[in-house]
Amino acid sequence: MTTPPPNFVLLSRPSCHTMDSRLGLATPVLDHGFIRIIDYMGNEASIVQAARVSYGTGTKTPNEDDALIRYLMRHHHTTPFEMCSIKVHVKLPIFVARQWIRHRMAHVNEYSARYSILRDEFYIPTPASVGVQSTTNRQGRQAPANEFMGQVEDVLGTIKEASQEAHDVYADLLNDTGRHDPPHDPDRISVSREQARMILPLNTYTEWYWKTDLHNLMNFLRLRADSHAQEEIRAYAFVLMDILRMWMPSVYSAFIDTRMRAFTLTGNMVDALSIALEAAGMLDLSKNLYIINNMTLTRREREELIAAFKPVR
Amino acid sequence: MTTPPPNFVLLSRPSCHTMDSRLGLATPVLDHGFIRIIDYMGNEASIVQAARVSYGTGTKTPNEDDALIRYLMRHHHTTPFEMCSIKVHVKLPIFVARQWIRHRMAHVNEYSARYSILRDEFYIPTPASVGVQSTTNRQGRQAPANEFMGQVEDVLGTIKEASQEAHDVYADLLNDTGRHDPPHDPDRISVSREQARMILPLNTYTEWYWKTDLHNLMNFLRLRADSHAQEEIRAYAFVLMDILRMWMPSVYSAFIDTRMRAFTLTGNMVDALSIALEAAGMLDLSKNLYIINNMTLTRREREELIAAFKPVR
Amino acid sequence: MTTPPPNFVLLSRPSCHTMDSRLGLATPVLDHGFIRIIDYMGNEASIVQAARVSYGTGTKTPNEDDALIRYLMRHHHTTPFEMCSIKVHVKLPIFVARQWIRHRMAHVNEYSARYSILRDEFYIPTPASVGVQSTTNRQGRQAPANEFMGQVEDVLGTIKEASQEAHDVYADLLNDTGRHDPPHDPDRISVSREQARMILPLNTYTEWYWKTDLHNLMNFLRLRADSHAQEEIRAYAFVLMDILRMWMPSVYSAFIDTRMRAFTLTGNMVDALSIALEAAGMLDLSKNLYIINNMTLTRREREELIAAFKPVR
Amino acid sequence: MTTPPPNFVLLSRPSCHTMDSRLGLATPVLDHGFIRIIDYMGNEASIVQAARVSYGTGTKTPNEDDALIRYLMRHHHTTPFEMCSIKVHVKLPIFVARQWIRHRMAHVNEYSARYSILRDEFYIPTPASVGVQSTTNRQGRQAPANEFMGQVEDVLGTIKEASQEAHDVYADLLNDTGRHDPPHDPDRISVSREQARMILPLNTYTEWYWKTDLHNLMNFLRLRADSHAQEEIRAYAFVLMDILRMWMPSVYSAFIDTRMRAFTLTGNMVDALSIALEAAGMLDLSKNLYIINNMTLTRREREELIAAFKPVR
Repeated sequence: MTTPPPNFVLLSRPSCHTMDSRLGLATPVLDHGFIRIIDYMGNEASIVQAARVSYGTGTKTPNEDDALIRYLMRHHHTTPFEMCSIKVHVKLPIFVARQWIRHRMAHVNEYSARYSILRDEFYIPTPASVGVQSTTNRQGRQAPANEFMGQVEDVLGTIKEASQEAHDVYADLLNDTGRHDPPHDPDRISVSREQARMILPLNTYTEWYWKTDLHNLMNFLRLRADSHAQEEIRAYAFVLMDILRMWMPSVYSAFIDTRMRAFTLTGNMVDALSIALEAAGMLDLSKNLYIINNMTLTRREREELIAAFKPVR
Repeated sequence: MTTPPPNFVLLSRPSCHTMDSRLGLATPVLDHGFIRIIDYMGNEASIVQAARVSYGTGTKTPNEDDALIRYLMRHHHTTPFEMCSIKVHVKLPIFVARQWIRHRMAHVNEYSARYSILRDEFYIPTPASVGVQSTTNRQGRQAPANEFMGQVEDVLGTIKEASQEAHDVYADLLNDTGRHDPPHDPDRISVSREQARMILPLNTYTEWYWKTDLHNLMNFLRLRADSHAQEEIRAYAFVLMDILRMWMPSVYSAFIDTRMRAFTLTGNMVDALSIALEAAGMLDLSKNLYIINNMTLTRREREELIAAFKPVR
Repeated sequence: MTTPPPNFVLLSRPSCHTMDSRLGLATPVLDHGFIRIIDYMGNEASIVQAARVSYGTGTKTPNEDDALIRYLMRHHHTTPFEMCSIKVHVKLPIFVARQWIRHRMAHVNEYSARYSILRDEFYIPTPASVGVQSTTNRQGRQAPANEFMGQVEDVLGTIKEASQEAHDVYADLLNDTGRHDPPHDPDRISVSREQARMILPLNTYTEWYWKTDLHNLMNFLRLRADSHAQEEIRAYAFVLMDILRMWMPSVYSAFIDTRMRAFTLTGNMVDALSIALEAAGMLDLSKNLYIINNMTLTRREREELIAAFKPVR
Repeated sequence: MTTPPPNFVLLSRPSCHTMDSRLGLATPVLDHGFIRIIDYMGNEASIVQAARVSYGTGTKTPNEDDALIRYLMRHHHTTPFEMCSIKVHVKLPIFVARQWIRHRMAHVNEYSARYSILRDEFYIPTPASVGVQSTTNRQGRQAPANEFMGQVEDVLGTIKEASQEAHDVYADLLNDTGRHDPPHDPDRISVSREQARMILPLNTYTEWYWKTDLHNLMNFLRLRADSHAQEEIRAYAFVLMDILRMWMPSVYSAFIDTRMRAFTLTGNMVDALSIALEAAGMLDLSKNLYIINNMTLTRREREELIAAFKPVR
């Protein structure tokens, strides 16, 4: 533990040029939505710095830092990742916002339909994304059978029309939409905004500022970029994933390998696989060498993989 | 710090007879909603017990416990209140759920419209609760002027009709509503549940299990039973307030006095009031006695109140 | 979504007889520590109930509930586990408390050494648990080499003596230890408790009430019962593990299989293993059958395991 | 709700020149401690921006922004303050760290005494800060009576000596302190770091990186800069308060007025004061004018203050 000299000066905040060049830019998502990077705190060196406060050494060579980040990620040492944060401005349909807000470790300021009037902007799926109830996944959807393809345009027409009609009722109840038609009719009641909005459909767009730390961003991505997540929120997760890749290439790469492409073997699976591997003669030395003859694993990962399977007896 | 004897046995969990007698009962809220108490942890003795772990003494007489609870509440010693929890089953309109879920320090399991079909149950305001945009509060509502009273029934009719129409479109898109009409038409596409629901309005009812600790319950109540909260969520807050009164009478009483009926003077207000009180001759001893001649203040509260106002200069 | 009948009554809170019979009993940990169950909320049916709010069906047969719990655990559907809570009274050395408190999703009321006097109770390791710095793990320890075994008693004597001496200084500074010797000397200064305590060593015992939900209890156990955790906090984790087994047998069993005995394959490991399995001829149908010929896997687990390994090309 | 143009670019992250000029500089605290600003996110415009997402208008004139910040603070609209974050590097005695860590809504990476060796740096109070147990506050201290002043140096000598002796035992147990004396003796056992440290006193210095959002920073300051907080943690709170003033002058000013100098009247106090004010003839119009003739209150604050006191009857 070394006391830093009292006159040790940082010239500037940790930054990331790629992020800086994207500040404020809106990446379109779905038909009317977007994600804009508003601000961020930290870069990959910040993670390494926090992890190394434990043993007093600073940033090392890029290669060692990359290996440290992989190690931290794989062993769920999550606190150093909490040392970075990101803030984005998001425009999204309300039914997506309802899924998104379940992530509690975040900060949110949302457009208020008690104060302000919602525009007639609705999410309407593309023809290709209309699905029927999945037959294998109770909460999923799948492409319609060919014989129903001709009805997809009708479906979209129905959704569009019903959305617009709901907004017409909303505007009618408000009887005072500011810049929007129709004009205010002084002889008619103007229902309060907080009440009139209840008639709007869940595909109405809302907006918010959302800030979270890197660890919780990855928790979000793991769940919402997953193939079981609803396609509409996945579209947002994919944009955030791109932002992560731009901001933190090593973290992104470790995240993909240790979270998105990972498979967790239960204890019973480890046993079952061990029995099979042994029966196939793969638990002896030479076969093991074959397994580990893989350039993408680090030495430590190779050792851990080999150690994972033991004859059960 | 006394080690409890290793054979010290609790005969049962801390409980509250009034709560026990209400377990599972649904208290109606709004037109189709309810709140049911599912479970709870702790009673007022649990708060006192946690507070007294600091100095090793157990529950005292009811009177002293009541004073301790008031003291803890007034001085924002919040951790002992976190030692109690409550779990309720709530049925509520989606626009209310959207406000409710902003309270992050809670646990929620919500009915999923990806898995399951939402019924045609909508919140329709009562005639008395229809309001126009408030002229004094940008996010509030107020009673319509008399000349518009005759239009209130029309408003409700419009909301009811638009809600039902939206649900008809939903059922039509699903083309497979299980027990509901209309019957499944094998020649028509059945849109997935997760997509079809996007057409439903924000006044559709949903359900959830909600669990939180007593401290965060009171944070919820302070914000959502407040006169600035939307009337619909206030209706739920009032039911939870009744539950609090039943469960924890001393906490309830302290909560009303120190939160709901409290007024926080800023430093500048304290100065302004001090000047005025001094000018009125109320900062001398006898006038002070007049202020404190009030039976409802404890000795400590009286002393703190007197000490709060000092001649400024 | 079915509205429960308004007169639906729960006869009592969900409970667990084994837990009820253990309420208040102190299980010894280390030399002076203990864990006592003070209260709990919920049982395994509560988890199932919360999970099933999604699709409206209640508790099924024990077997189906067990499978559901396994499924939820394996797929990290954590919110239903948050619906249960536990509160324990713990006596533990301060250095253990410092590790424990890092788990933020919990509620704590600790004995205050600003208010009250700490007794001369210190954690002194057993001879068998004294270790030297690990040569393989920078943060671990290992048994001393045989030649040093004779020095272990000296080490313990040193720790014991130094601890007692520190407490003597503490008592001396306080010059007022209440019921303890030495008696108060009116001619000597009595240093405030909040200052005098700073001289006490990190193996001094403290106490607290700790409450957390089941999901976060398991997060605690996964990290603190792990072989990389410090032996002293592991001793507490093991007692909590026993409590979990008693309280929630199916959860415990799923926790062991899917967390404690699990091994997470990174994407690269999946690829490496796939290549090896293919080379060994195990990715064809008959060999696969051999893998899955394992009674402890559910059908779904078997399918997922088989699907995890694909020829990479 | 206006969609920002897709080509709207932010030239740089929101920043604060004063903070930028202080990055990395260590402000000394106590005898060996410090606080260094490592990074920050956001400035006062970020708060305003988040608050105004509700009604779609951007940053206004400085004066209006200042008033908005005061308003948000006074009415506990805390989410916009969560949109800013700060990260500091802190060196602090362990007993201070134990109080600090109770603030759960923060991110921490601490120096690990399992990995690394703690230096012989201890907090030793200044003579002026040695106190005896407070007679009015069970958890406080006060200046010793004159007759004991002569003993203060002895107290400090005792603390210093006992601290150093404890560290000598620690070094002796380690028998391997790297760069420190004494040298490693190959014939003696080297106790593991994680065990040897248990003998160190609570005034030993540790270090951590600490990151929190602005709302939780103010929660920390309200409790830890308060006169009831222990003097040693107050020393750190005062440095953070200076940082807040530098970073966010309007927030700082509002924080002082609405939190640090505020006094919350309970409902009963409001009643007691109302009776007294009425009796003094101050609730009639002219006396009220006298109260409000105060330049430091905004119009809204004046109105709220006047409205707070009503004849109770």
